[in-house]
Amino acid sequence: MNPSKDMTWRIFLSGEIHSDWREQIAQRTEAAGLPVAFSSPITDHEASDNCGVDILGPEASGFWRDHKGAGINAIRTTTLIRRADVVVVRFGPDYRQWNAAFDAGYAAALGKALITLHGEDLDHALKEIDTTARATARTPEQVVQILAYVLS
Amino acid sequence: MNPSKDMTWRIFLSGEIHSDWREQIAQRTEAAGLPVAFSSPITDHEASDNCGVDILGPEASGFWRDHKGAGINAIRTTTLIRRADVVVVRFGPDYRQWNAAFDAGYAAALGKALITLHGEDLDHALKEIDTTARATARTPEQVVQILAYVLS
Amino acid sequence: MNPSKDMTWRIFLSGEIHSDWREQIAQRTEAAGLPVAFSSPITDHEASDNCGVDILGPEASGFWRDHKGAGINAIRTTTLIRRADVVVVRFGPDYRQWNAAFDAGYAAALGKALITLHGEDLDHALKEIDTTARATARTPEQVVQILAYVLS
Amino acid sequence: MNPSKDMTWRIFLSGEIHSDWREQIAQRTEAAGLPVAFSSPITDHEASDNCGVDILGPEASGFWRDHKGAGINAIRTTTLIRRADVVVVRFGPDYRQWNAAFDAGYAAALGKALITLHGEDLDHALKEIDTTARATARTPEQVVQILAYVLS
Amino acid sequence: MNPSKDMTWRIFLSGEIHSDWREQIAQRTEAAGLPVAFSSPITDHEASDNCGVDILGPEASGFWRDHKGAGINAIRTTTLIRRADVVVVRFGPDYRQWNAAFDAGYAAALGKALITLHGEDLDHALKEIDTTARATARTPEQVVQILAYVLS
Amino acid sequence: MNPSKDMTWRIFLSGEIHSDWREQIAQRTEAAGLPVAFSSPITDHEASDNCGVDILGPEASGFWRDHKGAGINAIRTTTLIRRADVVVVRFGPDYRQWNAAFDAGYAAALGKALITLHGEDLDHALKEIDTTARATARTPEQVVQILAYVLS
Amino acid sequence: MNPSKDMTWRIFLSGEIHSDWREQIAQRTEAAGLPVAFSSPITDHEASDNCGVDILGPEASGFWRDHKGAGINAIRTTTLIRRADVVVVRFGPDYRQWNAAFDAGYAAALGKALITLHGEDLDHALKEIDTTARATARTPEQVVQILAYVLS
Amino acid sequence: MNPSKDMTWRIFLSGEIHSDWREQIAQRTEAAGLPVAFSSPITDHEASDNCGVDILGPEASGFWRDHKGAGINAIRTTTLIRRADVVVVRFGPDYRQWNAAFDAGYAAALGKALITLHGEDLDHALKEIDTTARATARTPEQVVQILAYVLS
Repeated sequence: MNPSKDMTWRIFLSGEIHSDWREQIAQRTEAAGLPVAFSSPITDHEASDNCGVDILGPEASGFWRDHKGAGINAIRTTTLIRRADVVVVRFGPDYRQWNAAFDAGYAAALGKALITLHGEDLDHALKEIDTTARATARTPEQVVQILAYVLS
Repeated sequence: MNPSKDMTWRIFLSGEIHSDWREQIAQRTEAAGLPVAFSSPITDHEASDNCGVDILGPEASGFWRDHKGAGINAIRTTTLIRRADVVVVRFGPDYRQWNAAFDAGYAAALGKALITLHGEDLDHALKEIDTTARATARTPEQVVQILAYVLS
Repeated sequence: MNPSKDMTWRIFLSGEIHSDWREQIAQRTEAAGLPVAFSSPITDHEASDNCGVDILGPEASGFWRDHKGAGINAIRTTTLIRRADVVVVRFGPDYRQWNAAFDAGYAAALGKALITLHGEDLDHALKEIDTTARATARTPEQVVQILAYVLS
Repeated sequence: MNPSKDMTWRIFLSGEIHSDWREQIAQRTEAAGLPVAFSSPITDHEASDNCGVDILGPEASGFWRDHKGAGINAIRTTTLIRRADVVVVRFGPDYRQWNAAFDAGYAAALGKALITLHGEDLDHALKEIDTTARATARTPEQVVQILAYVLS
Repeated sequence: MNPSKDMTWRIFLSGEIHSDWREQIAQRTEAAGLPVAFSSPITDHEASDNCGVDILGPEASGFWRDHKGAGINAIRTTTLIRRADVVVVRFGPDYRQWNAAFDAGYAAALGKALITLHGEDLDHALKEIDTTARATARTPEQVVQILAYVLS
Repeated sequence: MNPSKDMTWRIFLSGEIHSDWREQIAQRTEAAGLPVAFSSPITDHEASDNCGVDILGPEASGFWRDHKGAGINAIRTTTLIRRADVVVVRFGPDYRQWNAAFDAGYAAALGKALITLHGEDLDHALKEIDTTARATARTPEQVVQILAYVLS
Repeated sequence: MNPSKDMTWRIFLSGEIHSDWREQIAQRTEAAGLPVAFSSPITDHEASDNCGVDILGPEASGFWRDHKGAGINAIRTTTLIRRADVVVVRFGPDYRQWNAAFDAGYAAALGKALITLHGEDLDHALKEIDTTARATARTPEQVVQILAYVLS
Repeated sequence: MNPSKDMTWRIFLSGEIHSDWREQIAQRTEAAGLPVAFSSPITDHEASDNCGVDILGPEASGFWRDHKGAGINAIRTTTLIRRADVVVVRFGPDYRQWNAAFDAGYAAALGKALITLHGEDLDHALKEIDTTARATARTPEQVVQILAYVLS
C-alpha cells in the first residue's frame, strides 16, 4: 500500500551548509521519482548573517545585528519544521552548528521523525540527539535509501 | 532549497485599517512572484461595526451591538490566524487598536511566527509585543523584503 | 483581503435532521459563490439508527444495537468536526438532540468557531451553548449572511 | 499497586440538579474512604440563572440576561472540567439538559474519562454520548462502585 | 459541591498598574476566605522599564533597552498565564495598554477563562476582547463577586 | 451532505501482513468509488526486518539489527498515523503482533477514529483495544461497508 | 542538582500480571528511598475480567461482557498514563498482552518516557516498541537501577 | 502581587558541566530566599557516559554504548524539561555541547521560557538560540538577578 501515491512527504534538511549534501539528496530522490518536497534554512551563509541589517537597518552592536538576522531566519525555519513530516539534521566536521542541534530538539518536541547524518567521529558528541533520532545515516546516499524505502 | 516551490505561505495581516499598507504588501509580493496567500480581518470599518445588527437584528444597547458584531468578526479572524504560518500586525498612529494586540497574543500562544509593523514612536508602548515578534518592520516594503528573503 | 480566494472553508452542519435547513444553507451559499465545503452527520434517521446492526450483525439488546451504530456514526462526526473550521449547530423544536449539544461541546474544546441556529423559545435552555458560540442565528438565511460576510 | 495512595482523583459531576445523586455519590465514597475530590456546576438553579444580572447588572432582554449568567457559570465549569480526571454526566427524566451534553462533548474532546448516569428510557437518545463514555451507570451506587474499583 | 475545598484557583491579574484595583480584589477575596492565589506582572512601572538594562547592562538604543526589559518581564507573565485558571484583564482610561490586550489574546488561545474589567467608555474599543471574555466587569467589587460565586 | 465530495479520507491499515485483507479493502472501495487514500506499514516482511542493516550497515547483535530496522519503519508508520483520519488495525490468528497493538494505542492517544478487524477467538485478548475502537469488524467486507456508510 | 528533592516521579507499571515484578521494583525503590509514586492497572486478573458485569449487570454475550469491563479498566489506565512521567511496560513469556503494547503506544504518543522490560527471546517481536523506548531492561533490578540513576 | 507566595518555580539548568555555575545560582537564590526548585541533567560526566552499559550490560560498539546511556539520560532530561517553567542553558568555552542546544530547542517548542548563559565570544555561534531566548545572561549572578526580579 504505497503512501507515495497519495501524499507528498515534506522533509526539512537542517544543518551544515558547507557541502552539497542537500543537492545530492535532492538529485537522487528526484531521479528515483520519490514524491518529496524538500526545504531548508537559507544556505547562503553571508545572506543569512546579514539579512537582519540588510533589510531592517544597521546595528552598532554585533549582538543585535545577529539577533535581527536570526529572528528573520527563524520565521523560515520554525514554520518549515512545523510543516515537515521528517527532519534530517546534518552535522559536518567544522563549526559549532548549534542551530542544527536546536532544530533537532525543536523537531523532536513536536513529534517529527528525525534522521541524523554525520561521520562516526561525531558519534559521542551527538549521542543525545542520535538516541532520539529514528536513524543515523553516514552518507547522503543512505538518507536517500531510507526515504526510498519509507516511501515505497 | 526553495520552499516556495512546494508550498504557499499563508499570511494573516492584522491591525490598522486606515492606510493601504496591506495593498502595498500584496502588490509588491505579487510583483515579486512570491507564493503567498494573504488574509486579513474585514477592513471595511463600518461593515465591521455593523455586521452583528445588520445580520442578526438590532440591539438597544451599544455593548451588545458591539458584542454581536465582534463575535462574527472573530469567526473570521480566529480561523484565519489558526490557519496562518505568519502573522503580521500593523499598529498605526491613531486609535486604541486593542484587537491588533489581542491578535498578536493569540498568534504568539499558538506558535505562529509574528512580525510587527509600526513607527519608532510606538516602540516603548509595543515593547512586550515586539520582544515576542521575530521582526519589527518600519515600512510595508520591509515586510515584503522579509517575505522575499524567507521564501527565497 | 479576501480569504475566499485562497482557501475553502470547511463547515460542519450538526444537529436537527427533520427539516431542510442544510439544503437551504447549501443552495444559498452556492448561489452566492462562496468557497465552502459543507459536511454533516448522516441525516437519514433510519440508516443512522440501523448502521451498526446492518453492517456488523444483529444485537439482542437495544443498548448494544445503539452502541454499535453510534460508534460508526462517531467515526464520521468526530473526523469531520476535527477537520472543520466552523461548526454550525441547529436545534429544532422536537426531540432531545443531545448529540447536537455533544458536538457543540466537542467543537468548542477544540477551538472551532461555533454558530448556533435555533428559535427564541429555546434560548433559555441553550444559554450555556449560546454563550460559547460566536453567533446565534434564527434562520438559515442568517447563517448564510454570516458566512457571506465572514468570507467576503 | 494502589494509585489512591499517591494521588487524589478529581471528578466533575455534571448534569441534572433536581435530585440528590451528587450527595449520594459523595457520602458513599467518603464512607469508603476513597481519595476523590468532587466538583460540580453551581446546583442552585435560581442562583445559576440570576448570577449574571445579580452581579453585573440588569438586562432588558432575556437572551442577554441568560448570556451573562451562562458566561459566569462557564468560568467554573470549563475550569473544573479541564482540571478533572473523570467526568460523570447525569441525565434525568426532565428538562432539556443540553448543558450536560455539552459538558460531555467538551470533556471527550479533552480526553477525559467519561461516565454517564441515566435510566434505560434515555438509552436511545443518549447513544452518541454513551458510545464515547467508558461506562454507563444506572444508579449513583454503581458510580461509587466504579470509582471504588478504579481506585482500589 | 464546593470546588473551593479541594483546589486553589490561580488567577492572573493583567493590565493597568496605576490604580489599586489588584489590592481591592485581593483584600476582599481574602476577607471572604476564597481559596485563590493571585499573581500579576511586575507593577512597579520604573522597575519594569529598567530591569533589562539594570540586570544585563546598558544599551545605547531605546529599542533594545525596551527589548531586554520586555523579555525578562515575559518570563514572568507567560509562565504565570500558562499556570493560571482565570485571567482578569483590566483596562484603565490612560495609556496604550497593548500588553494587556496581548495577554488577553495569549490567554484566550490557551483556553483560559477570561474576565475583562473596564469602564463603559472603552466598550467599543474593547469589543473584540469582551466578546471572547466570559464576563465584563465594571468594578473590582464585581470581579470579587464573580469569584465568590464561581468558587462557592 | 456528502463529505466525500470535498475531502479524501486518509486511512492507515495497520497490523497483520500475512493475508490479503488490505487488497480486499482497497479493491472494493475502489470499485465503490470511495474517496479514500490508504496507507500501511511496509508489508514485505523480509524487507521490513532487514531494512536497517541493508541500508545502514551490518550489526553483530540481533537486538541492534532489529533496532535499526524498527527505527526506519517507525518513520513511515508514525508519520502516516499522524496524518490519518481513520486507523484500521487487523489482528490475525498467528504471531505476537505487538506492533499492531502499539499502533492502536498511538492512534487512540492522538484522537484518531479506530476500527479493529479480527475473529471472535481474539475477542477476550483484544478487549482493551476493542473498547477504545469505534467499531470491531470481522471481515474486510465489513470495513468497506463501514467506510461506504461513513463517507456516503 | 537532585530532582528528587523537589518532586515525586509518577511511574506507571503496565503489562504482565502473573509475576511479582511490580513488588520487586517497589520494594527496592522504597529501600533506596527514591521519591517515586507507582501505579498500575488492576492486577487481580479475575476482578479485572469481571468488573464490568459485577458492577453494571450481566451480559449474555462475551464480547459485551468484556467491553464493559475493559471500559472501566480504561478509566484507570488512561488516567494514570496521562498523569505519569515514566511508563514501564513489562512483557512476560505467556499470553497475548496486547493491552501492554497498547499502553506503550498510548504513552509514546503522549511523549512519556518509556522503559520496556522483557527477556531476550521477545526482542524480535518487540522491536517496534523497544525502538521507541528509552531503555530496554531485562530484570526488575535494572529498572530500579535506572530509576536510582535518573533520580540521583 | 507576589507569585512567590503561591508557587514554586521549577527551573531546569541545562548545559555545561565543567564549572560550578549551577551551584553559584543555587546558593545565591537560596540566600535570597527565592521559591525555586532547580533540576539538571546528571552532571557527573563519567557516570553519564557509562550509565547505559553499567546498568544494562556491555556493548561491543561505541555507538550503541553511547546510545544506551543517552537513552537513560533522556528519561531524566525530557521529563524535567516538560515539568519546568524556565529553562536556563549554559554554553561554556569548550566541547561541542550539542545536547545543550538540543535541550534549548526542545524547551522552545514546548513554550518554556528560555534563558541563555554564555560569554560574548559565543554570541555569533549562538544567535539562533539567543533570538528565541527571553534573556541572554553573561554571569550566574545575572541569572540570579533575573530570577529575583521575575519572582519578586
